[in-house]
Amino acid sequence: MTRRGFLKVGGGVTAASLTLAAIPADTLMRASGAARAVGQRMPNGVELPATPPRRKRPDSVGFAIVGLGDYALRQMMPRFAQTERAHVAAIVSGNPDKLSRVGDAYGVPPDARYSYETFANIASDDRVEAVYIVLPSGLHADWTARAFAAGKHVLCEKPMALSSAECEHMIAAGRRADRKLMIGYRSHFEPHNLEAMALMAGSAVGPLRLLRTEQSYRMGPTSPSENWRVNRALAGGGPLEDLGIYGLQAALYLAREMPESLSATTFRPAGDPRFAEAFAHVASQWRFPSGAVAQLATSYDSSGTNFVHARGTTGALIMDPATDYSGQRMWLEGGERREISPGDPEVQFARQLDHLADAIRDGIRIRTPGEMGLRDLRLIEAIYASAAAGGTVRLNPDGTMRH
Amino acid sequence: MTRRGFLKVGGGVTAASLTLAAIPADTLMRASGAARAVGQRMPNGVELPATPPRRKRPDSVGFAIVGLGDYALRQMMPRFAQTERAHVAAIVSGNPDKLSRVGDAYGVPPDARYSYETFANIASDDRVEAVYIVLPSGLHADWTARAFAAGKHVLCEKPMALSSAECEHMIAAGRRADRKLMIGYRSHFEPHNLEAMALMAGSAVGPLRLLRTEQSYRMGPTSPSENWRVNRALAGGGPLEDLGIYGLQAALYLAREMPESLSATTFRPAGDPRFAEAFAHVASQWRFPSGAVAQLATSYDSSGTNFVHARGTTGALIMDPATDYSGQRMWLEGGERREISPGDPEVQFARQLDHLADAIRDGIRIRTPGEMGLRDLRLIEAIYASAAAGGTVRLNPDGTMRH
Repeated sequence: MTRRGFLKVGGGVTAASLTLAAIPADTLMRASGAARAVGQRMPNGVELPATPPRRKRPDSVGFAIVGLGDYALRQMMPRFAQTERAHVAAIVSGNPDKLSRVGDAYGVPPDARYSYETFANIASDDRVEAVYIVLPSGLHADWTARAFAAGKHVLCEKPMALSSAECEHMIAAGRRADRKLMIGYRSHFEPHNLEAMALMAGSAVGPLRLLRTEQSYRMGPTSPSENWRVNRALAGGGPLEDLGIYGLQAALYLAREMPESLSATTFRPAGDPRFAEAFAHVASQWRFPSGAVAQLATSYDSSGTNFVHARGTTGALIMDPATDYSGQRMWLEGGERREISPGDPEVQFARQLDHLADAIRDGIRIRTPGEMGLRDLRLIEAIYASAAAGGTVRLNPDGTMRH
Repeated sequence: MTRRGFLKVGGGVTAASLTLAAIPADTLMRASGAARAVGQRMPNGVELPATPPRRKRPDSVGFAIVGLGDYALRQMMPRFAQTERAHVAAIVSGNPDKLSRVGDAYGVPPDARYSYETFANIASDDRVEAVYIVLPSGLHADWTARAFAAGKHVLCEKPMALSSAECEHMIAAGRRADRKLMIGYRSHFEPHNLEAMALMAGSAVGPLRLLRTEQSYRMGPTSPSENWRVNRALAGGGPLEDLGIYGLQAALYLAREMPESLSATTFRPAGDPRFAEAFAHVASQWRFPSGAVAQLATSYDSSGTNFVHARGTTGALIMDPATDYSGQRMWLEGGERREISPGDPEVQFARQLDHLADAIRDGIRIRTPGEMGLRDLRLIEAIYASAAAGGTVRLNPDGTMRH
């Protein structure tokens, strides 16, 4: 996980101390304003394509990429070379140099290179049908609303937002605009995770009894003013929204039920500038109605790991690494150890993009809709509420807390 | 773990439904009476020594082995061949055939072969200085008291007893008798676990952040009347006292602090005769004052595993299997994976026996005293209390619950 770069946000972002449940709109605007005004330098290690990826089908859906950070430039945009029905039609950035270099490399016409100030003009740009929001999480709600206001479909990176209230606004905005809303949960398009879902839905390990997930890495020296991932207004609690959400997702799609209660604990080392606002560690234990238990942990201050273990009565499914960009490994234990290699993990990026295109063109049901992002934010809120109270939280089937 | 046999207790034991916190004395006596009256058959797979192990030193301590079950006959007694200062001086069993065959094989004179009825006579047998209690856990308190009443030192198998109240009585009885009380926590004498303690006390993984332990196996068809391990009067809650206690112990000796709070959950599949009294699964999450977290799980109804993971800021220590009789493996992750092979796990049995002998002869401090067993029973009670209440339990530094 150390290859994750730290997309830096301009120093103009104030290190406000906010509750997670409700990030005030003016703070989002301030953060948004900072990103707009400053723009970001080109991340390290970006290899721009030598020739632009070709558009493959006449009915290919044009995407506008909003935010040219590390993930967009190093992981996601290069995968348009493998899409069938999706192409880069526009880019949006606060940095003119990036707009120029990335636009040239991806064959984006100069008049389809937008700044945050000119984004609203995208409404009349028919080359763009979908907007992919790849901004810091605290900006997702606002920019999703802007994309819907421009009449576009939205693919929004995870976490969907920083609160369930924001998620509800986003879903409502999509309904009003009659446009699709999809969350960038790429594991739902990754062969190992898809095979794991199928194995657990079958009898590969017998009835599930214990899920364990752990996603962590150790963040280098930084602070909330120089790294958005530990800035509360932009990243919420930190590792849970960023990394732990993969374990949270896996627990849900492998258990195929919602927890009925959970208890959680957070930790922040005293005096560490990295964690002036974000948590360093978040751990939680969930109980499902079936009696199965999930134990989750995530951290920005532990040696790197990313695994999912699902133990049933007759065997266990181990995924390690479970949800990386590439390099997934998976095996069954209990009896003979059996390696499972269902395909190349790197197809996840292109399949995710094509999925929204298929939903737009063919009306297929979106696998990772806004409602899934909302459900997950409710659980994240329950985890923080439990940790803050030092107690166990009971949950309704939709993930809201029982009071 | 499937090699663990199931020491069967006579059908005379009533399947009483009892709370864990206080097993009534009359139930213990009934259970005790059943064991006394019926005796147990020779367990499967016992290989008796062809020649009795030799006593090696003139100051060797004579042990009476109380209970000739699977663990005693297959694991522990054969290791007297490797002890330096401990020898089998007497055996105690309710089964005359076993007394005869085991006595002959271990060179125990006929007049040092006791039944449960004649056990009190051991008080005048100077060949015996220590009594090793290897009976079902529900009988530990009673037989420890009898051994102290006979003026002997006691090595009592884990769990020390089924409640902290029983543990307190045992400690008090030892003090009154001015005799040593040691708990059979063999991992404290096993090279991998000892090296793990040293590594964690050093800076091998940086400050500890997350401990995960899991001890489980899948029990075959049985019931509380035919298998003491799922009989509440004899085994308490079941897997936590039997297997999970290794993970509980490891969490404590690797974290080197007591948890300040914990939340737990138990599960028992409906209508399964194996779990008419015992739990099938017990999971808990602990928070330590340092901010570190432990997530523990144990089961009698999951595919077999026995691991301990300790993750710190800069690395992780993995033990898998962690606390078996043999075959331990251990490695450090973070940077280069480094295998650690500090010695033969099988020495744990002999070193444990010699340790009590050294304490008796030289007055060395016992590493695993009754106070440690008491501490662990307090935590076990807190785990069950949390699970029963469905809430988080706060703990005092001695492991008692804060109310």
